Amino acid sequence: MGDARVEGLRRRNHLGEKITGRGTTREIQSAHHACARILNMLASGALTRGGTCLISPVMSEYIDNLDTDSSLGVVERREFSFGSTEEPLVLESGRTLSSVTLAYETYGQLNADKSNAIVVCHALTGDSHAAGVYSEDDPKPGWWDIMVGPGKPIDTDKYFVICSNVIGGCMGSTGPASTNPETGRPYGADFPVVTIGDMVRCQRRLVDHLGIDKLLAVIGGSVGGMQVLEWAVRYPERVCAAMPLATTAKHSAQAIAFNEVARQAIMADPTWNSGDYYETGRPEHGLAVARMVGHITYLSDESMRHKFDRRLQDRGELSFDFEADFQVESYLRYQGNKFVERFDANSFLYLTKAADYFNLENEHGDGSLMAAFSRSKCRYLVVSFTSDWLYPTYQSKEMVKAMKKNGLDVSFCEIEAPWGHDAFLLPNERLNSLMRGFLERAAMEMNGGSHAF
Amino acid sequence: MGDARVEGLRRRNHLGEKITGRGTTREIQSAHHACARILNMLASGALTRGGTCLISPVMSEYIDNLDTDSSLGVVERREFSFGSTEEPLVLESGRTLSSVTLAYETYGQLNADKSNAIVVCHALTGDSHAAGVYSEDDPKPGWWDIMVGPGKPIDTDKYFVICSNVIGGCMGSTGPASTNPETGRPYGADFPVVTIGDMVRCQRRLVDHLGIDKLLAVIGGSVGGMQVLEWAVRYPERVCAAMPLATTAKHSAQAIAFNEVARQAIMADPTWNSGDYYETGRPEHGLAVARMVGHITYLSDESMRHKFDRRLQDRGELSFDFEADFQVESYLRYQGNKFVERFDANSFLYLTKAADYFNLENEHGDGSLMAAFSRSKCRYLVVSFTSDWLYPTYQSKEMVKAMKKNGLDVSFCEIEAPWGHDAFLLPNERLNSLMRGFLERAAMEMNGGSHAF
Repeated sequence: MGDARVEGLRRRNHLGEKITGRGTTREIQSAHHACARILNMLASGALTRGGTCLISPVMSEYIDNLDTDSSLGVVERREFSFGSTEEPLVLESGRTLSSVTLAYETYGQLNADKSNAIVVCHALTGDSHAAGVYSEDDPKPGWWDIMVGPGKPIDTDKYFVICSNVIGGCMGSTGPASTNPETGRPYGADFPVVTIGDMVRCQRRLVDHLGIDKLLAVIGGSVGGMQVLEWAVRYPERVCAAMPLATTAKHSAQAIAFNEVARQAIMADPTWNSGDYYETGRPEHGLAVARMVGHITYLSDESMRHKFDRRLQDRGELSFDFEADFQVESYLRYQGNKFVERFDANSFLYLTKAADYFNLENEHGDGSLMAAFSRSKCRYLVVSFTSDWLYPTYQSKEMVKAMKKNGLDVSFCEIEAPWGHDAFLLPNERLNSLMRGFLERAAMEMNGGSHAF
Repeated sequence: MGDARVEGLRRRNHLGEKITGRGTTREIQSAHHACARILNMLASGALTRGGTCLISPVMSEYIDNLDTDSSLGVVERREFSFGSTEEPLVLESGRTLSSVTLAYETYGQLNADKSNAIVVCHALTGDSHAAGVYSEDDPKPGWWDIMVGPGKPIDTDKYFVICSNVIGGCMGSTGPASTNPETGRPYGADFPVVTIGDMVRCQRRLVDHLGIDKLLAVIGGSVGGMQVLEWAVRYPERVCAAMPLATTAKHSAQAIAFNEVARQAIMADPTWNSGDYYETGRPEHGLAVARMVGHITYLSDESMRHKFDRRLQDRGELSFDFEADFQVESYLRYQGNKFVERFDANSFLYLTKAADYFNLENEHGDGSLMAAFSRSKCRYLVVSFTSDWLYPTYQSKEMVKAMKKNGLDVSFCEIEAPWGHDAFLLPNERLNSLMRGFLERAAMEMNGGSHAF
């Protein structure tokens, strides 16, 4: 099987129907199913020949999407600002921000009774661009384009989807790279440490601004899943259904350790200059190393074996020098360098710190996860993935147990997937089906037992 | 249970006998058993109170030993040199070294027929100092002092033990920090890339020098275990028994990935200066980050949870800054900084590269692990540890399968241990018992069926 045929598989569904161009919903679903099958075949080794992997899906927690055609079309990033010197945002640290901007996008139409709104929360280094493209010739759709769009599991024909960049980020929302109004210069390390709670409080302001009282659902994976949990516990009256994916109610020591190594890599770079580098040049080497550390945690031993094994990069023999001998080395270097182009090192420090600080039971339950969830009223769908060792299934089970002890309506599914933590971003029929069913039931409940559509 | 009582447990065996001072063999064994029990209790949570861990064994692949009293006493590091401009060592890369020095230590007495010699191979950043102390008041015994000594599993009352620092290292053997005789300056990045094969070929020269034809055993864990495999396959006539612990016949993509991130951390440090830093100042920041990366892989999710969980370091509340909030952060920073004091950054690059290059099946079996082991004639004891995710059990099983297909005498044991890859360096009664029995059987065989002692 050669590359050409694999390319063909990407472009045809399992019935052989061509799916290039802007296909119908059904065609595009079929394409996703074909992708999922290719990935499964890859996992089983069916698509390797002579030790060479014939296709290489690019993976990461913040994945480059497969080249499916976007069915949502052109979308637009907007901004919402709030706060003033008189009425600043008071953060959980006690510090204040007098002006906050959130970059956000919305997809689909808010219905008349405003009962179909879904907040999608992005992961660590994601952005507000969950789906669609920015122009007709934009080659890169949003980070969850396989999940969000007309006819997709988060169906924009039915639901009004909101996704905003978190505070502390660098993709349009206020963060350390933003101008500090007091100095006229970028905040840098003067930016206050923000928490997952602060992120969600800002999102709530956006939801208020959009005139929505109660969200049909809040959905997100990884650090986005932490935001989902925070929404459900902090604002119980405002969430009908919550879907935390591949996430945890608190970081393990190991997860903190990986983040700390990544932070130290940035801070060890002399160009980081205590966070004051916006006019002198960015700590690119440190940030690239930080990203490489993170990247390993998003994959799995198994997925790395399937994807790279010990294959050499553009050479027949070992180099006996310190160039990248192995494909996995070359891949990591590439991912590190690519990340540097789009991401701010200080934001990386702040966002990893927020993730490490997150501790649902301490913040809302006085040390008891069960007490924390006693505040919550929504229904839950909790999903973990077998090969996710960053936020392993036992951590999801702990939260499910605490939810159930409170008599909450909880569904839990551990999905068999070899891709590690990244799995929540990859095509997966089981996840799609769970997502559809969960949202349909939530919509029924939101509308008093009858379909609103 | 307070710290005082735990200290007491360290100093008394299970019968309450005091074990301070230079105890008898039996007393010291009991002390080790007590230590093992404490570690097991720690793993089970029995030694925690109110979320606080009452004892904290310091762990790492190259462990600080528990404060057991050394029973081997004062030992001495020696040097063995070979090679000349006329007869250089030709490395597997094809490059040459005209002069090679190995730092080594020996413990116990070589018997008359030279049939009781054991080579112990150290792991990535270890050294020749496997056991004993360098002076009566030296507080720090060798890295495997719990295993090597009179009455210990590798019993220096019976066996003659040899341990040398690997070529490429920085603890007395020739490596990148050594003076290049051609320039009179340190080699730096001009040092040739060495392999596990090169390391073992140098060890063989040392064994020749000591007048030993056939080794009773070669024993080592981690990268030391790779050397064991290399010995057994490369020199089948010279090894009676081989014990590779917590190791692999080739690095997985994930293991290469972690090493590559560590190397990139060093090379990203501008003071690394392409390896030429011996006169200008060492890349301490980069090396510390590299060590932190490695350190995480030596532990396990479970052991980190038991050891640190989310406990804060010297503070009651989160700092809301980028200081070390959590104990695990503080611990990693400490380990990184401590490592920098003793280790050379270039050596770290060379040794990780050697580990990544190691591929027994390619080097000795033309791509077949079974073919590689067909060269081997010794008996094997292969040991893996349940929580070792750096070299997981499935990798040991692969080598065991290939050994068995060759009809070799193989014992395999996966030891239940929560400590991750580090487990092979920690007190473990099961490991001790396996080691003793294996060496006794090997000695029987070496002496034609009768005990030599």
